[in-house]
Amino acid sequence: MSAEGGHVMRLHVRRVPICVPGFSFAGVASGMKPSGRRDVALLASEAPAAVAAAFTRNRVVAAPVTVAREHVRRGRARAILVNSGMANACTGPAGLDTVRAACAEAGRVLGADPRAILPCATGRIGVQVPRRRLLEGVRAACRALSPRSFWAAAEAITTTDAFLKAGVRRLDLGGRRVTVAAMAKGAGMINPDMATMLVFALTDARIGAGPLGAALRAALAASFNAITVDGDTSTNDSAIALANGVAGNESLQTGSYAHRRFTATLTGLLAEVARLVVLDGEGATRCIEIVVRGARSAGDAARVARAIGTSMLAKAAFHGGDPNWGRVLCAAGYAGVPFEPQRCRIWIGKVLVVRGGVGCGNESRAARVMRRREFQLTVDLGLGRGSARLLTSDLSPAYVRFNSAYST
Amino acid sequence: MSAEGGHVMRLHVRRVPICVPGFSFAGVASGMKPSGRRDVALLASEAPAAVAAAFTRNRVVAAPVTVAREHVRRGRARAILVNSGMANACTGPAGLDTVRAACAEAGRVLGADPRAILPCATGRIGVQVPRRRLLEGVRAACRALSPRSFWAAAEAITTTDAFLKAGVRRLDLGGRRVTVAAMAKGAGMINPDMATMLVFALTDARIGAGPLGAALRAALAASFNAITVDGDTSTNDSAIALANGVAGNESLQTGSYAHRRFTATLTGLLAEVARLVVLDGEGATRCIEIVVRGARSAGDAARVARAIGTSMLAKAAFHGGDPNWGRVLCAAGYAGVPFEPQRCRIWIGKVLVVRGGVGCGNESRAARVMRRREFQLTVDLGLGRGSARLLTSDLSPAYVRFNSAYST
Repeated sequence: MSAEGGHVMRLHVRRVPICVPGFSFAGVASGMKPSGRRDVALLASEAPAAVAAAFTRNRVVAAPVTVAREHVRRGRARAILVNSGMANACTGPAGLDTVRAACAEAGRVLGADPRAILPCATGRIGVQVPRRRLLEGVRAACRALSPRSFWAAAEAITTTDAFLKAGVRRLDLGGRRVTVAAMAKGAGMINPDMATMLVFALTDARIGAGPLGAALRAALAASFNAITVDGDTSTNDSAIALANGVAGNESLQTGSYAHRRFTATLTGLLAEVARLVVLDGEGATRCIEIVVRGARSAGDAARVARAIGTSMLAKAAFHGGDPNWGRVLCAAGYAGVPFEPQRCRIWIGKVLVVRGGVGCGNESRAARVMRRREFQLTVDLGLGRGSARLLTSDLSPAYVRFNSAYST
Repeated sequence: MSAEGGHVMRLHVRRVPICVPGFSFAGVASGMKPSGRRDVALLASEAPAAVAAAFTRNRVVAAPVTVAREHVRRGRARAILVNSGMANACTGPAGLDTVRAACAEAGRVLGADPRAILPCATGRIGVQVPRRRLLEGVRAACRALSPRSFWAAAEAITTTDAFLKAGVRRLDLGGRRVTVAAMAKGAGMINPDMATMLVFALTDARIGAGPLGAALRAALAASFNAITVDGDTSTNDSAIALANGVAGNESLQTGSYAHRRFTATLTGLLAEVARLVVLDGEGATRCIEIVVRGARSAGDAARVARAIGTSMLAKAAFHGGDPNWGRVLCAAGYAGVPFEPQRCRIWIGKVLVVRGGVGCGNESRAARVMRRREFQLTVDLGLGRGSARLLTSDLSPAYVRFNSAYST
């Protein structure tokens, strides 16, 4: 990337070994990616696991999303199967057939019902996945399954990602040590609405599908549903949680103290991984946490945060480290919710730049804050007690260069 | 601009002499722009003129918008007064005082009520306009008024514009020759909602404020309210029409044949000028006409067109000449209106690229169409009879470079 576009971050997340009792992983290269990189991932539980999931709200959904939605309804699953490089979206009946064939093949080799396999895909829309290659990849992945291959799987779910995004947390539940791990992919077409591109949470906790769903919904609201890169909601967004119960804790019931602790752990983990997705936003050089408070409601605050976080002009100013708060106020003004500029205050980091809707003249101090790779932008609307947070990336020339040459 | 960013268009609109009977114009340099370019424009009618206007729906409005809204209510006005370079938005009571002082000064020199002066501004948000300079500029503009200075005024209302945007039409109404001229400025922060950055229509037709407002609303719906560059609705959007009646035609009544013809002429003129605004979108190299049809309603169609026309990914693909119809379908899918991909057809120019929600394999032919500076993208939802049009620009690295370095 050129100097003009700012340097694109290459975070090298340390690959600490991640194991989740009762789970094994594989990431193999079937040859579907021209680069020859890993393109089929399998995340499998030895025993049937409780499952909860959230999928994109886009009305155009990829074939694997259609099938995974059906399969998740059973409440139990054995494995998540992912192919990367081709989204298998807008591929018609042939695309659906490919997904069902892949689930059948994985089920056959693993000795599981095909409906216990949850399919996902990510990559270019409108391209048929070469079925024979995919099935070969599925067989190879089944053979390669190992408790130690978490990172190989994390690699195999990526496309344009500059680095891998994963994390692990442990907690004690009634004397039992419980592990929760998560991996995600995503760099562009990121504006999750119920879920993100792909995020998988795996735990050995004992928890039913209902309480697991409640925990996942709460965690997503504060993590993947509070980020944006380019405002484009993908056709393939899938968030799936699997819990195989191997830890042997007393089954977690919604509303219990243990369930709240589990939910808090899952939320912290997914928030950490979601932040990595924003830091890896295509061409991104900065991660900005937008905090909106003082709104009439949390919903109003979220709309203001979303308007600021998807404004091309505000994001371009973030890229240039330009404390151009006028663009922030302007975006807040068209968010479509009550807003009185004369009550508004804005901080960049801890530097107050707007009071009573008018600038305070602290731009040079604010510009210093904006040189950091991560900073906070706080907007207080002065109208009530509603608040919201959103992580967004900056908009760089590299984003446009990259995305204008995607297929050619 | 670098080769990578694509060449930024420099259209040189031929400056045919534009005169509107009974109107005079001025564009002067008061020294408010560091470049020393013209920064104060005055568009004045000899006689009091009927006035109609539309202003931004942003809840953050610039001081001149607040004042112009008050003044427009009288239904008659003498002049439009514009300063460019500073938006006079988010400038508090001091900003309002500056606007009122400028109107008072113009009124004094022109021998008009200060409320007959309609103020506008464009430029950076959050900066106080230097009052003494502005008032000097106002006096100089009053002195410089001439029927032949249309283009000087058109120049004085610009900021980042690469070329001037104006046009003129003539029509015969009951044996009287009527002139309608318009000028606009705008290159960034373009997502008009009721009006655009600045657009002024001047006519010598005899027409009351009510019928003039009806004509203006109809014309804006099909022109400035159907364009976007970056999805950011400005704080300063103002569309003002002045009609001084000098042509001596029988006064135009809403619903009459003559009023329909006048409205059609105004619509055609404003559509032409709006197209120039999109062609001058910051960093733009292409102008894409998005046509959505087959929607359940015109409103649904407009939402789909807006989602596609503001999708960063779709706009980056337009820049690269990449027939990546998957991004178009994806944006349609998150527009929030009924959409069934399997009924959807998409054309790039006349090349069918999607049928039944699936690609037709005509990408290379479509890519040839996309090499043009202007092309049409048609999306048929197959659900009803609602349709809408939207002009959008492509998103280039030059847009981001330009807007990340705006103030620094």
